[in-house]
Amino acid sequence: MADQYAQSGEAVPASESPEIPETPGIPAIPAIRWDEPPEGPVVVLLDQTRLPGEESELVCTDPPALVQAIRTLAVRGAPLLGITGAYGVALAAARGFDVDEAADALAGARPTAVNLAYGARRAQTAYREALAGGADERRAARAVLAAARAVHAEDAEASGRMAVHGLALLDELMPGGGHRVLTHCNTGALVSGGEGTAFAVALAAHREGRLRRLWVDETRPLLQGARLTAYEAARNGMPYTLLTDNAAGSLFAAGEVDAVLIGADRIAADGSVANKVGSYPLAVLARYHHVPFIVVAPVTTVDPETPDGAAIEVEQRAGHEVTEVTVPFVSMAGSEAGGGISVAPLGTQAYNPAFDVTPPELVTAVVTEEGVVSPVTAEGLAELCARSRQVTIS
Amino acid sequence: MADQYAQSGEAVPASESPEIPETPGIPAIPAIRWDEPPEGPVVVLLDQTRLPGEESELVCTDPPALVQAIRTLAVRGAPLLGITGAYGVALAAARGFDVDEAADALAGARPTAVNLAYGARRAQTAYREALAGGADERRAARAVLAAARAVHAEDAEASGRMAVHGLALLDELMPGGGHRVLTHCNTGALVSGGEGTAFAVALAAHREGRLRRLWVDETRPLLQGARLTAYEAARNGMPYTLLTDNAAGSLFAAGEVDAVLIGADRIAADGSVANKVGSYPLAVLARYHHVPFIVVAPVTTVDPETPDGAAIEVEQRAGHEVTEVTVPFVSMAGSEAGGGISVAPLGTQAYNPAFDVTPPELVTAVVTEEGVVSPVTAEGLAELCARSRQVTIS
Repeated sequence: MADQYAQSGEAVPASESPEIPETPGIPAIPAIRWDEPPEGPVVVLLDQTRLPGEESELVCTDPPALVQAIRTLAVRGAPLLGITGAYGVALAAARGFDVDEAADALAGARPTAVNLAYGARRAQTAYREALAGGADERRAARAVLAAARAVHAEDAEASGRMAVHGLALLDELMPGGGHRVLTHCNTGALVSGGEGTAFAVALAAHREGRLRRLWVDETRPLLQGARLTAYEAARNGMPYTLLTDNAAGSLFAAGEVDAVLIGADRIAADGSVANKVGSYPLAVLARYHHVPFIVVAPVTTVDPETPDGAAIEVEQRAGHEVTEVTVPFVSMAGSEAGGGISVAPLGTQAYNPAFDVTPPELVTAVVTEEGVVSPVTAEGLAELCARSRQVTIS
Repeated sequence: MADQYAQSGEAVPASESPEIPETPGIPAIPAIRWDEPPEGPVVVLLDQTRLPGEESELVCTDPPALVQAIRTLAVRGAPLLGITGAYGVALAAARGFDVDEAADALAGARPTAVNLAYGARRAQTAYREALAGGADERRAARAVLAAARAVHAEDAEASGRMAVHGLALLDELMPGGGHRVLTHCNTGALVSGGEGTAFAVALAAHREGRLRRLWVDETRPLLQGARLTAYEAARNGMPYTLLTDNAAGSLFAAGEVDAVLIGADRIAADGSVANKVGSYPLAVLARYHHVPFIVVAPVTTVDPETPDGAAIEVEQRAGHEVTEVTVPFVSMAGSEAGGGISVAPLGTQAYNPAFDVTPPELVTAVVTEEGVVSPVTAEGLAELCARSRQVTIS
């Protein structure tokens, strides 16, 4: 692989440039892009902490800036983190930073999403292989950029295939159409090289005239549902309604939810799913109300090295995300820790896991670009991963 | 009853003045009080929308001001609404407003909490009985004030007895002590003439050295948990931790919750419990994890006129409570509807039920001042209500 791109000179091979599907409702600013202005290559992010009020770019000129952007959630979402990790290593190589050090820092910037480490390590491997193949640093840097672009393009392509598989599953489970789908957090174009994971399925249903309602959980504490999913739904003209996370119970009880569609940050070998905190309560509610609970994620989210849910490290984030409300453009003197506005008494301790883990017995199906696993078993997932690896290698 | 107080002159009979238990951690400003400055009687509220940042009084000189305070949630919580409804009618009588009209407006200011109508109607009845007994308007006004003070005092007393029954139940269910209790919304001194309902039980456990942890759901959209329960827990020196509502699932899964304690806004004759939205998902989670789900409420919360959960009217509140964040002292030009700061795209519709309904089969026990009903059956509740009426009449 390294040799192939070591020969390719300045231009990126056309076959490796990301083929992002046409998405009319999506902002002019993509979630991530590689740019090469005269003063040197940069990774440009859509700063997701400013949405929906402002679409602004965050230009990262070195890996530490990118690590910081990952930690502050300017860039987030499992598939996009994979792409970011890969571009980050490419940036390190292009700018003369220590590539291994950058890959370690990027891979470890957040612990739960396996895609982040996957993207960073894949780019790092491309770099090492290029050097081992006799490339100089400049050529090796081109090889790692090509690998990052490949991660980006593959994610875009996987997104389209997940949407097809996911919509077929919805139609199979609910032949009548008019799907009322509940989703949590944000899983659309903002987390993907394409149109996303769970959101892409709902969007496909909408385009086919079969989405009756997208119920959008606001997703506390950082309101990715209210800020980002509502933004994407609005831009795509989808019929959506926002709710507090704890109002989902009332919707289930009223029979207003036909299916839950969520993404995943890591899927253990046994099928346990780590996803944004609040996913597990939805799985329990869905089971209690006999509603399908469907996880949509690329195969790279499945981590064969993590045997089960107990082995998944769940990121604990700072308490001020709960005790304070952070609003763009408004900062408050006297706030305690996070620069936001205190809503709880000063000194209040908070429990703030970023993710929770849903056991496989509560998951109706895992939808990937390679197909659907249902029921969710270790064997089914292993088979899917094997199929995916064949595709990648071929 | 009317005659008794029609004789009492200016001074409030000592036996009828509220005997609020000593609560060292509670603010100097009580949640509600009746005051008689030279310019005429007023109802003074602790403005709960300003907590925890500011303890400020809201002085209501007429019933419409009180109705407005109820609607904006400056005063809230089922038992306290009952007290407010009664004082509101007393204010109408004392200030020469149409008492029946005021009682109607107060009783209908919010639809779900049955206590509000109970308090207003009881005061209204006292007024009518006084007039029917030959009292003039001045004496009738004193009678209705006495009735309001009685509602207030009875609630304080009921609060203490609920705490005793509730703690006994906790100790029975978990003989080892070291209770880890999860609660939702706010049910302490801020909603009561005494120390509250569910919170009063946790506080009693704390005083006996048997509370290991109070898990406080923040309770979106209005954050009564973060703002008010955390405030009361901090003032009482309780070991508490705040969490987003959707993080409760992780606590259950980790075995960190021994019992859920919540209040109620209305309990139907069949035992269905209307309470703050988010209570029902906790009940489902509690059942899934075999954790007791305990409702603590005065007998006045049981409404024999409401046959079942389907018959409970659930208040739907404005969408801007979800689409905007409202922070005291900060207002934002350009916000859409509620004067807060938009967190969702403009034009976003929200589903915002204030309450949800938990069916009796998910409720382990209903704790009242008259005792505990478990399992929760229509017969058990009816018996309790009958006992309560005997006590009141005697």
